Amino acid sequence: MDIHYFSSKLLEDAVDEFAKLPGIGKKTAFRLVLHLLNQDKDEVRQFGNTITKLREEIKRCKSCNVISDNELCPICADPKRNSSVVCVVENSRDVIAIENTQQYNGIYHVLGGIISPMDGIGPSDLNVENLQNKIESNHVEEIILALSTTMEGDTTNFYLYKRFREYPIKISTIARGVSIGDDLEFADELTLGRSILHRTLFESTLSQK
Amino acid sequence: MDIHYFSSKLLEDAVDEFAKLPGIGKKTAFRLVLHLLNQDKDEVRQFGNTITKLREEIKRCKSCNVISDNELCPICADPKRNSSVVCVVENSRDVIAIENTQQYNGIYHVLGGIISPMDGIGPSDLNVENLQNKIESNHVEEIILALSTTMEGDTTNFYLYKRFREYPIKISTIARGVSIGDDLEFADELTLGRSILHRTLFESTLSQK
Repeated sequence: MDIHYFSSKLLEDAVDEFAKLPGIGKKTAFRLVLHLLNQDKDEVRQFGNTITKLREEIKRCKSCNVISDNELCPICADPKRNSSVVCVVENSRDVIAIENTQQYNGIYHVLGGIISPMDGIGPSDLNVENLQNKIESNHVEEIILALSTTMEGDTTNFYLYKRFREYPIKISTIARGVSIGDDLEFADELTLGRSILHRTLFESTLSQK
Repeated sequence: MDIHYFSSKLLEDAVDEFAKLPGIGKKTAFRLVLHLLNQDKDEVRQFGNTITKLREEIKRCKSCNVISDNELCPICADPKRNSSVVCVVENSRDVIAIENTQQYNGIYHVLGGIISPMDGIGPSDLNVENLQNKIESNHVEEIILALSTTMEGDTTNFYLYKRFREYPIKISTIARGVSIGDDLEFADELTLGRSILHRTLFESTLSQK
């Protein structure tokens, strides 16, 4: 149902803003806005400010590229993490998903995307240079490719494998316990945690095809 | 899934704020926040400002109590509306729902709630005084009770009927085309529009019980 009439322009503007969010239709947007109208002014002001502040003040970790409040994210800044193992993921959401499995003690590298010719995203759009520097200058022993098990994920896996196979490092992928065709973020914690523990050498996945 | 780890406090705060909204879980909140992070700073600032502004600047129409930008809402201020027919609803959402059926040319009265002993809401918590003044001082010929077809709606209907039956006005209810037990806002436009057109005298619904 499309809403044609609003008794207030302020109300309509707020509904329109919420309806821009992914998966939020006009009716849901309307419900959310009316909910906010019933809250304390202070709480709503805080809601608005938190959003604005988030976008204006948030940084990217200069080492792994994850969303961070500081120059270095808590993981890259933590001396107890094993920095010889680098888990390569598409975005910050994946870092947080894997971190919440509590199965992983290495560090991360956020590509900031995935190779997708359909969307015009090629290797040069990804944050790979940074990963290469890390491999060349640091004591990296293994990179774990933890990308979505989709066509785009496979393409990106293969690209990274080709690019880094000459280096003296292990290149592994997370175990295919994650159902084929699923986005990483929808996997349950158990499956996701296990797929980190039972990662397999990338080369061995090639022969299975 | 509960999210324990966030790489950023700003991110966590924003996710928490979104997760306070009704029907928005932590995972959805996270998805919305990451979406905002990918938008232009200006757009996100506008989103935040629109919400804050809405809550701080919005008024209630002094005549019908609907959410409004001005002292009088567009409907109460419109001389072409038939002010002798008053449609009594629970909240502003219902005004907008009925208005969008384009089946109604009278004015509205927003009670601001519904009698609900379970939630401790009695007649004195509703904006009824205002309705009584309107009936006593104006040329009201009919009030249409357009409340949800729930126990609480029926109770409120009956209360209003008892309170106003001595006045020389017609008291009608919207036709029971709206499925019993449904909240008004979830009715489809056709059903809702028809239920306004085929409203029945409140007295005649009593004998059917």
